[in-house]
Amino acid sequence: MSAPDPALVDLLGLVAYGELLAFDRLAADARLAPDLRRRAALSEMAAAEIAHYRWLADRLTALGVTPDEAMAPYVEALQAYHDSTEPKDWLEAVTKAYVGDAVTDDFLREIADGLDAPDRQLILDVLHDSRYAEFAAAEMRAAIAADPRVANRLSMWARRLVGEALSQAGRVAAADRGGLTALVARRDGVDVSALFRRLTDAHTARMTAAGLNN
Amino acid sequence: MSAPDPALVDLLGLVAYGELLAFDRLAADARLAPDLRRRAALSEMAAAEIAHYRWLADRLTALGVTPDEAMAPYVEALQAYHDSTEPKDWLEAVTKAYVGDAVTDDFLREIADGLDAPDRQLILDVLHDSRYAEFAAAEMRAAIAADPRVANRLSMWARRLVGEALSQAGRVAAADRGGLTALVARRDGVDVSALFRRLTDAHTARMTAAGLNN
Repeated sequence: MSAPDPALVDLLGLVAYGELLAFDRLAADARLAPDLRRRAALSEMAAAEIAHYRWLADRLTALGVTPDEAMAPYVEALQAYHDSTEPKDWLEAVTKAYVGDAVTDDFLREIADGLDAPDRQLILDVLHDSRYAEFAAAEMRAAIAADPRVANRLSMWARRLVGEALSQAGRVAAADRGGLTALVARRDGVDVSALFRRLTDAHTARMTAAGLNN
Repeated sequence: MSAPDPALVDLLGLVAYGELLAFDRLAADARLAPDLRRRAALSEMAAAEIAHYRWLADRLTALGVTPDEAMAPYVEALQAYHDSTEPKDWLEAVTKAYVGDAVTDDFLREIADGLDAPDRQLILDVLHDSRYAEFAAAEMRAAIAADPRVANRLSMWARRLVGEALSQAGRVAAADRGGLTALVARRDGVDVSALFRRLTDAHTARMTAAGLNN
């Protein structure tokens, strides 16, 4: 077997560890739910992450790479993101899931363009189911309808989430062994600042859709 | 729609809350894993529980019962079981999963006999996949092979798990609104002490298979 593309290994390792950690944190955040129905909903969002983890880990194994080794470079930065954005209550938890899932998906959709099938398809398959975003947005809108001041609090929280994510993304890029940035650059005429602008614009539109201000 | 069988509603509520809580605790216990591979394995065991929860909750909803209401009578006893058996390390966590899953499955197999299809099939469908038990037993046997003293420590831990489970099962029976005990008694010529003896014997055989003493 020829050596696998290091950029692909880096990407799969990053996304796999992101899924493993998202599982862990969503499962913990589910305890913040005000009732068992909502707790089950967040727990199911967590379970979807671990199913996706398995696909990514299996693909790494098929490429001859140990998943643990591929994930190792990203443990610190992803852990730091979650440690610095621990939700204090249920609304912060669903807002974090809403914001984080969407930004992750937008990034993955962009980067999938630079991959060959079947890895492009694998990355598209681990995007989040839209019913989770709909659930989270409905929770946020209902809370804002009940108390309009909630919009301000969650808007500030969402800004902090994006700020922490960008700061940790910067750390990932700085620690990158060349693979991930190569993968972004591989796409025809990609402009990294334009990519970030697209991600930011999409985030802003989603915040408005959930009743938050920017 | 005619009123659903209260014994069935009780059983589905008990098992559903058991799954929801097992998800929560297994997801937390996964943090005790010595590496990411093992952490992912326990996280996947957790994810299977929440998938089963969904089937049970959907069945309750189809029967016209709110899952939260059906689960409410069992929250305290199941929570108390988990609070009193919080694993201190990875081996305690896998032992708890191994013991708890098997005893639960044995009990459900017994009680499924008293149900009509499709509920009998539903209960059989939420039994644990045997690969999880194989994973846990392999972890226990490897640890015992590396240090034979581990067998004593895990044997004591397993006895404590069963003791706590029986004590909380007694609380469930005492708090039962008549449904669950009726369901056990419904089976032809059932003898509750014989049922407990069968469950205990099967547990003893499993402990031996995993390298523990009794």
